[in-house]
Amino acid sequence: MATKENSVPIPTVVEVDPFIPADQQKGIHNRWHPDIPPVATVKPGDVFKVQCVDWTGAQIGNNDFSDDIMNVNLTKIHNLSGPVAVDGAEPGDCLVVDILDVQPFEKMPWGYTGIFELENGGGLFAKEFQSRAAKAIWDFHGVYASSRHIPGVRFAGVSHPGLIGTAPSQELLDTWNAREGVLIAQHAEAMPPVAYPPEPIGAYVGQELPDEVRAKVYREGARTIPGREHGGNCDIKNLSKGSRCYFPVFVKGANLSVGDLHFSQGDGEAGIITFSCSIIKNGIEKFAMKQPIFLPSPVDPMYSAKLIFEGISVDYHGDGKQYDMDATVAYKQAALNAIAYLQKLGYSRQQAYLLLSAAPVESHVGAIDSPNACVTLALPIGIFEDDILPREEGLTAKVRGQCAIRSDGLVDS
Amino acid sequence: MATKENSVPIPTVVEVDPFIPADQQKGIHNRWHPDIPPVATVKPGDVFKVQCVDWTGAQIGNNDFSDDIMNVNLTKIHNLSGPVAVDGAEPGDCLVVDILDVQPFEKMPWGYTGIFELENGGGLFAKEFQSRAAKAIWDFHGVYASSRHIPGVRFAGVSHPGLIGTAPSQELLDTWNAREGVLIAQHAEAMPPVAYPPEPIGAYVGQELPDEVRAKVYREGARTIPGREHGGNCDIKNLSKGSRCYFPVFVKGANLSVGDLHFSQGDGEAGIITFSCSIIKNGIEKFAMKQPIFLPSPVDPMYSAKLIFEGISVDYHGDGKQYDMDATVAYKQAALNAIAYLQKLGYSRQQAYLLLSAAPVESHVGAIDSPNACVTLALPIGIFEDDILPREEGLTAKVRGQCAIRSDGLVDS
Amino acid sequence: MATKENSVPIPTVVEVDPFIPADQQKGIHNRWHPDIPPVATVKPGDVFKVQCVDWTGAQIGNNDFSDDIMNVNLTKIHNLSGPVAVDGAEPGDCLVVDILDVQPFEKMPWGYTGIFELENGGGLFAKEFQSRAAKAIWDFHGVYASSRHIPGVRFAGVSHPGLIGTAPSQELLDTWNAREGVLIAQHAEAMPPVAYPPEPIGAYVGQELPDEVRAKVYREGARTIPGREHGGNCDIKNLSKGSRCYFPVFVKGANLSVGDLHFSQGDGEAGIITFSCSIIKNGIEKFAMKQPIFLPSPVDPMYSAKLIFEGISVDYHGDGKQYDMDATVAYKQAALNAIAYLQKLGYSRQQAYLLLSAAPVESHVGAIDSPNACVTLALPIGIFEDDILPREEGLTAKVRGQCAIRSDGLVDS
Amino acid sequence: MATKENSVPIPTVVEVDPFIPADQQKGIHNRWHPDIPPVATVKPGDVFKVQCVDWTGAQIGNNDFSDDIMNVNLTKIHNLSGPVAVDGAEPGDCLVVDILDVQPFEKMPWGYTGIFELENGGGLFAKEFQSRAAKAIWDFHGVYASSRHIPGVRFAGVSHPGLIGTAPSQELLDTWNAREGVLIAQHAEAMPPVAYPPEPIGAYVGQELPDEVRAKVYREGARTIPGREHGGNCDIKNLSKGSRCYFPVFVKGANLSVGDLHFSQGDGEAGIITFSCSIIKNGIEKFAMKQPIFLPSPVDPMYSAKLIFEGISVDYHGDGKQYDMDATVAYKQAALNAIAYLQKLGYSRQQAYLLLSAAPVESHVGAIDSPNACVTLALPIGIFEDDILPREEGLTAKVRGQCAIRSDGLVDS
Repeated sequence: MATKENSVPIPTVVEVDPFIPADQQKGIHNRWHPDIPPVATVKPGDVFKVQCVDWTGAQIGNNDFSDDIMNVNLTKIHNLSGPVAVDGAEPGDCLVVDILDVQPFEKMPWGYTGIFELENGGGLFAKEFQSRAAKAIWDFHGVYASSRHIPGVRFAGVSHPGLIGTAPSQELLDTWNAREGVLIAQHAEAMPPVAYPPEPIGAYVGQELPDEVRAKVYREGARTIPGREHGGNCDIKNLSKGSRCYFPVFVKGANLSVGDLHFSQGDGEAGIITFSCSIIKNGIEKFAMKQPIFLPSPVDPMYSAKLIFEGISVDYHGDGKQYDMDATVAYKQAALNAIAYLQKLGYSRQQAYLLLSAAPVESHVGAIDSPNACVTLALPIGIFEDDILPREEGLTAKVRGQCAIRSDGLVDS
Repeated sequence: MATKENSVPIPTVVEVDPFIPADQQKGIHNRWHPDIPPVATVKPGDVFKVQCVDWTGAQIGNNDFSDDIMNVNLTKIHNLSGPVAVDGAEPGDCLVVDILDVQPFEKMPWGYTGIFELENGGGLFAKEFQSRAAKAIWDFHGVYASSRHIPGVRFAGVSHPGLIGTAPSQELLDTWNAREGVLIAQHAEAMPPVAYPPEPIGAYVGQELPDEVRAKVYREGARTIPGREHGGNCDIKNLSKGSRCYFPVFVKGANLSVGDLHFSQGDGEAGIITFSCSIIKNGIEKFAMKQPIFLPSPVDPMYSAKLIFEGISVDYHGDGKQYDMDATVAYKQAALNAIAYLQKLGYSRQQAYLLLSAAPVESHVGAIDSPNACVTLALPIGIFEDDILPREEGLTAKVRGQCAIRSDGLVDS
Repeated sequence: MATKENSVPIPTVVEVDPFIPADQQKGIHNRWHPDIPPVATVKPGDVFKVQCVDWTGAQIGNNDFSDDIMNVNLTKIHNLSGPVAVDGAEPGDCLVVDILDVQPFEKMPWGYTGIFELENGGGLFAKEFQSRAAKAIWDFHGVYASSRHIPGVRFAGVSHPGLIGTAPSQELLDTWNAREGVLIAQHAEAMPPVAYPPEPIGAYVGQELPDEVRAKVYREGARTIPGREHGGNCDIKNLSKGSRCYFPVFVKGANLSVGDLHFSQGDGEAGIITFSCSIIKNGIEKFAMKQPIFLPSPVDPMYSAKLIFEGISVDYHGDGKQYDMDATVAYKQAALNAIAYLQKLGYSRQQAYLLLSAAPVESHVGAIDSPNACVTLALPIGIFEDDILPREEGLTAKVRGQCAIRSDGLVDS
Repeated sequence: MATKENSVPIPTVVEVDPFIPADQQKGIHNRWHPDIPPVATVKPGDVFKVQCVDWTGAQIGNNDFSDDIMNVNLTKIHNLSGPVAVDGAEPGDCLVVDILDVQPFEKMPWGYTGIFELENGGGLFAKEFQSRAAKAIWDFHGVYASSRHIPGVRFAGVSHPGLIGTAPSQELLDTWNAREGVLIAQHAEAMPPVAYPPEPIGAYVGQELPDEVRAKVYREGARTIPGREHGGNCDIKNLSKGSRCYFPVFVKGANLSVGDLHFSQGDGEAGIITFSCSIIKNGIEKFAMKQPIFLPSPVDPMYSAKLIFEGISVDYHGDGKQYDMDATVAYKQAALNAIAYLQKLGYSRQQAYLLLSAAPVESHVGAIDSPNACVTLALPIGIFEDDILPREEGLTAKVRGQCAIRSDGLVDS
């Protein structure tokens, strides 16, 4: 018969508490550096769980104001769990990581999507919108998320780690710091900054370390904000539970770290990720790897009916300027087109932007032909309670309230 | 019983011959201008067919050298069929276009994918590769395409018009010419050029026109190379047969033109497109449209198993430079990662690039976080005869020959 | 440049005219028999087209009465094109058939779905409904079909041959006739009959044949109504364009015949099918084949949102009788549940039944647990113009008219 | 910040222990009867969890022999959790049940698939195989299951409740007992029996009840083996997490019960299901409901590449007998064809049958034309580690061991 004895739970190699500030906990770090020792070691083939705090380390609450977003301390992010070493992995190898599951903590069935202040975090539209903090809390009900701040929508999550990567070698780290330093120097006055150099303030490694190692890590450790050759903050929603990812290995043990779990694209969540790893010797050479490659999951949500918006590399939502095959400008226009459409349905611009940041939208790169890049953004129709199709009678603006905003009532302009 | 009398074929409103140079045929034009009169008028609800030559107007042949690509006359492109006016459409309306079918000519069951010369056509990697002309001929066997120039691959097409749009108003045309003119002036020395100004040489409108109208169209008409607010050369593979597209209307009758049919993403094809149109009055305002929006087709190929490559906005395949959240750079790295992988399987770089240009790959924009954009490129596994997964034993380089290259044997470097 | 000379159309090996009665045409037959000689021979790897009349051989017209269905001569069906021999195929081999395309004749862009008279054709609900002839004409507009007889619906077709198979050996034919003869003898009084024995009346082989061969074929030839070990009338909608099918070979040359093309599940259509064949020697043994196996197409329509009806093996729509794990009874209940639902939307029972016969519905076998089989029928929501979901306010019955019925006005009861 | 106070876990309304025999626990019952009182009551809109033991109530262990299957006490099944009443539901209403999640217990990450003895449980092939007990244990690793007893396979689960339904009214219960009684009487000697009458032995209701109520429930309560008008044991894999199901209500409060959770089709699992319910007044009439209807989940696994086997209603794996349009016979032939194919890959017949019972296969009903039903069974290719396609070189039989069999070594014949 079924007994406790013949039932072996999957072991957890990093345990954290989502309600305790990250910098008071073991097994968490927030910079990339080769000298951060592994907090656990697993064997190829082991199945194991890693618990993660949300990326801010419990700074954001389940409430109806965005003041916590406004005041978030970004020197302290992103909080990653690990590193976890894999026995036998060596530089040049390929670490095969099966992302077997991503689940929220049972005691914390919610997450959030935020718009950051222009001066503190910024974001894709920081300058266009002169961003003020805003927030939506998402409640997780099994496979679905919905928000009291964005009524009329429910979607199935594509749960994935926003941030996952192997540790860089010292050489790779030095390369990052050098090339990003050049860019920063070229745009010294930019607000928000174009990139973030190493920053000892807020740096954290939650384990016993010799002082000189800690100082070196804090002084040199790469910020976790962008994705890089080792993976990192790629926010690839298709790196979801069920996917298999191939990482290049740069240090002995590979030293895998993970954090910033997303229930869906773009929303922050604490939770538990289940892994299994294996090693392909000399995989970097075998597969000509300069960055991770991966196989997507067979269990991503299937919303076949979509409404697709186009954008080109002309800032027609702004000053009308023509850019040279710039896919980022095109992507922003497509998003702005979608936001304008959603506003016709009664959503505020803040709600619309938060929705696009969290829902299972897809953005494709179409043609890049001189001088325009063409990018599309696809919005699944099935996530809306009402019919949102463009019909002859036009769109109906319902009363949708507003998302969580600053307690002083200020919203972006 | 079934009789000819009770069976009414769908009417064809523009007829062309794919074997006759485009500039010897009626119903074709290759510039965007409001003064090009419609060659046919349909009523809302009509189902009708439009025949299209390939975008070069029969310049490219089904042969095993790329000299025709090398020498292609690009002042003559893209050859569009139309315009077709829709009764009752007025500026400010939305033209709803059902793309009901896209089929090759029965007498011409093939198409091609080309890499253009750096100095004549260029392309995304023109500078990186110092491009020399190359070509793959694709044979269409029902829903599938395969190429003697890229062995080991067969894929189901996502047939779509690469180029479709409504006519611009004079005001919109002037805006285009102005903003692109600024960009051209800023990069006067660029090779390939960053954009193409109006060019009377090679301009063509295949209908009787007063001389002064013809001269004005040739002098002012916008080149067809980029996509713009009216649609145009967006190469959106999901605008495939079965999709419904909503275009803004800028001139009376809407004046829809179409060309550059693709059997699959990126390959040129002559063929026949079937449409049905309707009008939503005042649709631009109703849907806050600044560009077309569309509903994808339910019949696109479904290849669920994919191998996905990542790229960030660091030119690590080149000089290692860090770019500022540039999705185009990231997209190029992802493509270069895929090309490097395919080379491990024995494909030449030219074959690999042509394959990515024609096969049903998908490119998604992931995170754009300072300073990196992260873009992915997904390659369907099911289009390969062999297993291409990254397995422990590495990849096997088969003998794959080469694509069509220049008769002087020169390939890019 | 593109020329007629470098463009080779795909050859057609069987040509027919959909407007001429089948029994006046070459290359058509309507019985299965090993002694019917091939009308064409192809080589492995050849791509070729076969034209097909509709299964009745032009008996049904594009009109608004069902009298042609009522009076259809079923001794003359199904009209198959072929046989086509494949060089080198021998008994015991496996014939690999790529169904590359299925297209309607350009001159006949329509098909039909019919309900047959209880006494002439019958059908699944012949007895329950005391069936009277009814019909819907479907117009083909590219990838979509719609019907003036069933308003409010448009769906993408899953075009496939309803009837395709290799020729039986004499031994296999004898087995069929013997086992079906037993069943017929056991249910001699059944109306409609439980099976159909060989029937010389209406038999047809459209080629020159020695009299004794013709007489033997007409006397012994198996009727084409059911599917059998060689394929035959399986009406498997997933055997659609793009699929690859593996047939057992029973006679030299395999002798492939095909007919009863469907634009979608269950509607009759004349048209053109494109094939390519290859041979796997000794494939029957290699794959333990007792019937065809196949790989579905990557291009079937994707309607992810569905409304699913259940049915069990209790005739609760009739006398309430409990059947013993009978999946056919369960299937019928699921269909009757769907029909009842559609009637709430304003469709007549005849319209609803015709719609289920033609639309891309899917029926799955769930549990078969004593004493009930459980079968589901899934109706794609996206094929309806209106929202048909079961909402709180109930369903709205629109005026939907009626399908084509008998000119005497009689409908089933 | 995130705190325990602003985080409310989803409440659990029925708690059980998967390691304690079901008949020693509260909140479990194993018969359908209107007089079983609800063990919990929820309000429309509440989100709540229900824990379930496996359907046998802990009789089956995680070990390598099938003796527990052989000796399973089937009078005690299926163990259901509930009933849960929904405030305001009345006979004639429709109960809308959102199945929000299905998860295994963290402490019991495994399930099993069994073949039952001919004389104790039987099953679809009980007579054909003269079934002897066999078993496969499946380990759950996040979204995937794999088994040490069936090597070479890993699949994403389609987690769903095998058994879910509302309580019958006394009138409906009487109908069930009457109609099944007739069938049993007609096949009094059948082994396995064609159906199971009410059986006081093994009956269980885990709550305080007046003796006469308990006696009535045990005496009259319908067995849980088949699906019926209220839902029940339908084993519909698409009733998975994310689906929305509409149940007819027969008693005040609806009294929903659930059990027999499946990680994938056909394997037993203890676990936790998350629900939310609402009520549509008078829904039975509104939707013409005679059985549940449902909307499938957007998150079912997508394995687009499949190998599909056909079957017709001729017992060609047995005595060759022709059946009359019998979809069950056809379904069995399709399954036997798949099993024969899998045996060519080295799997034992028991392994193959267990695999088909657990993996995400799909069975469709194709044509039902006199005298043959045609049924297909689709096996996803992506669940196999190796390539299983039918290639020219045939199939390679690997050493696959055997599943768990009886400790006396007896397997079916």
